[in-house]
Amino acid sequence: HGKAAKAQAEAHAFLRQFYAETGRTGLEARLRQWTLDPTLTHEELTFGARVAWRGSARCVGRLPWASLRVRDRRHVTAPDEVFSELVAHLREAWNGGRIRPTMTVFGPGVRIVNDQLIRYAGYTQPDGSLVGDPQNAALTAYLRRVGWAGGPGTRFDVLPLCVTVNGHPHLFEWPADAVQEVNITHPDCPAVGELGLRWHALPVISNMTLDVAGQKFHAAPFSGWYLETEIAARNLADQGRYDQLPAVARALGLDTTRRRSLWMDRALVELNVATLHSFDAAGVRISDHHGVTAQFAEFARQEAQAGRVVRGEWSWLIPPVSPATTPVWAATFDPQEVPPRFRRQRRAWLDDRADSGAS
Amino acid sequence: HGKAAKAQAEAHAFLRQFYAETGRTGLEARLRQWTLDPTLTHEELTFGARVAWRGSARCVGRLPWASLRVRDRRHVTAPDEVFSELVAHLREAWNGGRIRPTMTVFGPGVRIVNDQLIRYAGYTQPDGSLVGDPQNAALTAYLRRVGWAGGPGTRFDVLPLCVTVNGHPHLFEWPADAVQEVNITHPDCPAVGELGLRWHALPVISNMTLDVAGQKFHAAPFSGWYLETEIAARNLADQGRYDQLPAVARALGLDTTRRRSLWMDRALVELNVATLHSFDAAGVRISDHHGVTAQFAEFARQEAQAGRVVRGEWSWLIPPVSPATTPVWAATFDPQEVPPRFRRQRRAWLDDRADSGAS
Ligand code: HEM
Ligand code: HEM
Repeated sequence: HGKAAKAQAEAHAFLRQFYAETGRTGLEARLRQWTLDPTLTHEELTFGARVAWRGSARCVGRLPWASLRVRDRRHVTAPDEVFSELVAHLREAWNGGRIRPTMTVFGPGVRIVNDQLIRYAGYTQPDGSLVGDPQNAALTAYLRRVGWAGGPGTRFDVLPLCVTVNGHPHLFEWPADAVQEVNITHPDCPAVGELGLRWHALPVISNMTLDVAGQKFHAAPFSGWYLETEIAARNLADQGRYDQLPAVARALGLDTTRRRSLWMDRALVELNVATLHSFDAAGVRISDHHGVTAQFAEFARQEAQAGRVVRGEWSWLIPPVSPATTPVWAATFDPQEVPPRFRRQRRAWLDDRADSGAS
Repeated sequence: HGKAAKAQAEAHAFLRQFYAETGRTGLEARLRQWTLDPTLTHEELTFGARVAWRGSARCVGRLPWASLRVRDRRHVTAPDEVFSELVAHLREAWNGGRIRPTMTVFGPGVRIVNDQLIRYAGYTQPDGSLVGDPQNAALTAYLRRVGWAGGPGTRFDVLPLCVTVNGHPHLFEWPADAVQEVNITHPDCPAVGELGLRWHALPVISNMTLDVAGQKFHAAPFSGWYLETEIAARNLADQGRYDQLPAVARALGLDTTRRRSLWMDRALVELNVATLHSFDAAGVRISDHHGVTAQFAEFARQEAQAGRVVRGEWSWLIPPVSPATTPVWAATFDPQEVPPRFRRQRRAWLDDRADSGAS
């Protein structure tokens, strides 16, 4: 009974918050009705998802939280339908480059194995070296175990998507037009463009559970647009990822023999310049770290004015490029998240009942 | 009695640690002797200061902790003598540019008002604007209240030093050769050098209390050498300090009209390049953020190998330039400090018995 009572208390707290914040009347009737049918309305689910975003301590992009579009697909649980709804998510979120914050919520039993919808393969070679994105080596290996034949073997092979329903995996290849990508070129230095770097336009996080009103939605992928540092200062730059700073520095003609030439820092800044330039030139929405942190400061001001605690994990909010030049550097936040909220899942393939080779 | 018992317990714990770590024998006799005369030997004080440095959670420069030179001046309490010992500290630590980590420990009743021995004046102008270092405006105002006539009025006027003994202030002007400074020039861009930026060579923190064996040394200034980011990414760059990124960007010929040219990040990197270049060219020891973080990783490895907890405040250890390229980014530490340790003091002039205009 403890669990049921807790869920009931969480549902009531959520409904109270929904009625209070939206200024609706009829809370008491809604609470009585909930006892008979504990199903969120579309409006309640949407509000819950938006408030979960608003309270995400690790997200610096929260200013437009109220604009989140929620695609309510709680009735969808068949693998093929899940996949076609995900393709529709990518197309609607993409919106010709004018990316819109979007979430799709699926029904019970559905899990998305890939931690983001678009991921590049990481192929471990016989000699132990790796082609592609090292972060996705385990995911790539899992997808091969469940039947993927493998891609062409480039550094940027888009992985197929694996959806499990009640623990049974189903593989899908994305139609070409669903995955939008941007080639990275530098405004002044063609040699950077010749490195052949690229990244996809939509970061769709698919391994977090949306927790609203005591209910857990395990398949509720969401997407905003990229912050340039995610691509240029982590994905392409980290030594444990694409490790491209030495190559970018050489393309820029920097002296990589002396640490104190700060070639690494120079290459890092220019890779960020190139990423912003390339997305802008392609008409694809992207934030820059000065703009997004200024917007975050405005978000924090609005939240404080509304009488709400500003949730934040400082170490996630500061950008990995010139952090002390941004307004989050000198700020402090409460890191504690409260429901409605997102929670990280353990890697979904650990729960695949058919797979025994979990890594 | 609670306080005396606590001091006694701390003294015993410290002496045990000293005998254990240094492999000495005779602990029991030393503990008995302490009851009669609770005075640290020179060796014990030195060990305590080194271990306090080793455990400083906010210091990324701890690898050479065992090399700290401790100048034991616990017998010195007269203002003139304190000052001449501080001049000697500057000269010995400076060591012709081959800077040596150094601490001077004074006797009871002595306090140093300036938070660092070398500080540049911040003059508030009649129109509310500020010339010099804004961070030192309150200190500058205090020094004027206790009798300083003011300097020539440049952006880099070295402040006089104020020592209080039993709460009574005494002012001293540094002899010219005690304060070593470096003009900042850029290896490739003369216009950066023409900005007339400079910084002093020795950061001597003088507002922390050394807490060893339950005893508090309130005047125990210590100095290492600079990390380039302290000067180039904070002191000269912060909007609330010298705010020089726009000027550096203009000197570099960057497009400061478009945020996404990342002119701020480019100027920041080049100011760091210039600072390293200038100190290196002048033969003055300075760390760079890649080198010092690699050394810190080695320090953490050594500490773990010695079976000790690595104390660290992540937000202080990451550099403010390209932090994710350094090995501290992905590391975690225990932020809790334990004695022997340093503690921050409140601004010393609040305790000046004669001054009522505290700001
Ligand atoms: C609109 C543009 C958006 C931007 C620029 C943005 C920016 C970011 C960034 C930079 C991170 C850190 C990522 C990392 O370092 O791995 C992050 C994390 C996060 N964001 Fe956002 N975000 C956006 C939209 C959204 C949306 C629409 C949601 C949910 C509805 C969301 C929820 C989160 C959550 C839950 C995290 C933490 C992820 C984790 O723990 O791994 N964000 N965001
Ligand atoms: C040898 C070269 C040294 C380097 C490169 C170095 C580097 C640093 C840096 C970058 C900081 C942060 C400063 C800030 O952001 O305000 C710091 C803080 C600190 N360092 Fe070091 N350090 C050195 C020597 C020392 C020595 C000799 C001691 C003491 C014996 C020491 C004790 C501390 C303490 C206590 C702090 C924290 C100060 C505070 O809380 O404001 N360091 N160090």
